[in-house]
Amino acid sequence: MMTEVLIGREKLQNWVERVFEHYGFSAENARLSADVLISADLRGIDSHGVARLSGYLRLIEKKRINSAPQMKILHETPSTASFDADGGIGLVSAPAAMDIAIEKAKNVGSGWVAIQNSNHFGIAAYHAMKALPYDMIGFAVTNASPLVTPALGTERMLGTNPICLAIPALHEPAFVLDMATSAASNGKLEIAERAGKNIPKGWLTQKDGSDSENPSELKNGGMLLTLGSDMDHGSYKGYGLSAVVDILSGVLSGANYGPWVPPFVAFLDPLNDLPGKGIGHFVGAWRIDGFRPADEFKTHMDQWIQRFRETKPLHSNHPVQIPGDKERAHHTKRSLNGIPLVQKVWEDLQNISAQTGIVLAT
Amino acid sequence: MMTEVLIGREKLQNWVERVFEHYGFSAENARLSADVLISADLRGIDSHGVARLSGYLRLIEKKRINSAPQMKILHETPSTASFDADGGIGLVSAPAAMDIAIEKAKNVGSGWVAIQNSNHFGIAAYHAMKALPYDMIGFAVTNASPLVTPALGTERMLGTNPICLAIPALHEPAFVLDMATSAASNGKLEIAERAGKNIPKGWLTQKDGSDSENPSELKNGGMLLTLGSDMDHGSYKGYGLSAVVDILSGVLSGANYGPWVPPFVAFLDPLNDLPGKGIGHFVGAWRIDGFRPADEFKTHMDQWIQRFRETKPLHSNHPVQIPGDKERAHHTKRSLNGIPLVQKVWEDLQNISAQTGIVLAT
Repeated sequence: MMTEVLIGREKLQNWVERVFEHYGFSAENARLSADVLISADLRGIDSHGVARLSGYLRLIEKKRINSAPQMKILHETPSTASFDADGGIGLVSAPAAMDIAIEKAKNVGSGWVAIQNSNHFGIAAYHAMKALPYDMIGFAVTNASPLVTPALGTERMLGTNPICLAIPALHEPAFVLDMATSAASNGKLEIAERAGKNIPKGWLTQKDGSDSENPSELKNGGMLLTLGSDMDHGSYKGYGLSAVVDILSGVLSGANYGPWVPPFVAFLDPLNDLPGKGIGHFVGAWRIDGFRPADEFKTHMDQWIQRFRETKPLHSNHPVQIPGDKERAHHTKRSLNGIPLVQKVWEDLQNISAQTGIVLAT
Repeated sequence: MMTEVLIGREKLQNWVERVFEHYGFSAENARLSADVLISADLRGIDSHGVARLSGYLRLIEKKRINSAPQMKILHETPSTASFDADGGIGLVSAPAAMDIAIEKAKNVGSGWVAIQNSNHFGIAAYHAMKALPYDMIGFAVTNASPLVTPALGTERMLGTNPICLAIPALHEPAFVLDMATSAASNGKLEIAERAGKNIPKGWLTQKDGSDSENPSELKNGGMLLTLGSDMDHGSYKGYGLSAVVDILSGVLSGANYGPWVPPFVAFLDPLNDLPGKGIGHFVGAWRIDGFRPADEFKTHMDQWIQRFRETKPLHSNHPVQIPGDKERAHHTKRSLNGIPLVQKVWEDLQNISAQTGIVLAT
């Protein structure tokens, strides 16, 4: 029987902030890192929220995350830049890069920043959505530790490499697509594993490349499949999209790419002879009025959203959704009622509390 | 029994050029349009090559394609623009927009152009690949006539809305991803239909939303499914990507979007009360040295490509491919040996020949 602990958003966020400070983060970086992590929990992306806190802390302890980075720009044009995150946490470097992209978009219509020497950046939506208040379209992608095999292959070569676009509307809420380019995210496997359930075919293979319906096979050397799942259903497309994310994030920035992306888990060491530095992200923003007046665009976005909600549904009780709807519903509910944590995560946080002396109570 | 006609690339291209001139195109626009169409045939994307010529001509006859457009820029910043194609053919307006994007990228590091009031633009790869000789990454997307249902829906709301990225390498050939965001393209259904074969589940539904393995059901009001095919396998991701393409191409440019995108076939009229003008495209380019020196990037792209080719294969006789490999192999072969045309397409071209008096012989 699984039990859940419910904890208020502010209480949890303040605690996470103090924990990051304890690990040497500046007040500002601790506040930002906590904000990004908690935003994942609020949006219902539990795998990317405080469940990941201990993972980050282990990397800080191993000096694989620099707790006091000095970020610097490497190359720059009016609409582009690359950026060395100095081994810092992606929860800080990605928002910093997004600020630069937004500034460039204000000046010349769009802005694009490739980040090297970084680490996992949490949920992509946090970064892309930073563009929304400026009437810009936000874009954020990142590469990640290899768990996914390319179509026709049977080797871990790519991360779950997410793509996120955030697009503002007028009265309707923003359109926010935030998707892994694998058929299923790691988080979905974890949920199935905790519940002791099988997973659909087409998500995962065993180590030898044969199909698996057992979510635990990932830990035995199995591989996630790309969106499309098999060649007949377009797995080469999911592979292609994941590859683009890897190239923009890794090759364009000067970070590592493909099988060389350093593992997130601290008990696995990075490979030798790395072709780049750390992991990479790529973020950007288009100013809407670089193309048409923002109010005009947003009025049409409202019409787009309303018309798509009215799509004739396949099942009468399941209307067609707009990307971001589900996460926004979670956000509303959890902001009000608190964030539910499964027992395993709660124990994880209690361990951190014991180690740091920073008390966390519901 | 299907027979094929083999015809030399130059002969076919010259003929197409003269046909477009016959229909009122300037010499330059006729040459460009023929080049884009033939590039599809060369790359093995037969559905987007001369097989589509009669479709374009019917639209010109119906004045739904303007044979002598005056394109003009509507809004502009140093890195962005929107562009009214004046009802012209996408085969001309998309390369023109790409030229503007490349020019802007030369000046400020990246360039992005949204095009309204256009028509079908052929293969996306032609446009994105224009960036390659400038050491830029090219991007091209377009919306298209509604044939695809969003996840959880059963209504034609989206086109096959392709995404293309072209990325240069040093000694290796360029990485070129050009993919429909539907599970399968229209072209694949046509091939199955001609061969009298069933298609896999997960590509198509009947009019009532139930699965279909009969490719002809598309003509009976069926719907294509998005990449992912069903909710368990991420059809909401394919829907999200297709939606992004529709919004960038249609809403951002001031073109039509979603179910309002005008049909390609001349015997179907556009809907009333259209929210925009024509169909829309969105193209762009990033200058690589806006992020890191181009030679450095291209050397790492070679390493990326070589490492991915060496991925442990699932079947020993099918190595992992790099996006663009298959199309390049076609291009090499067909440039040398000629372009094979199925009987139905050959007859179609002979009809055009008879109507225009411009003789086409093998």
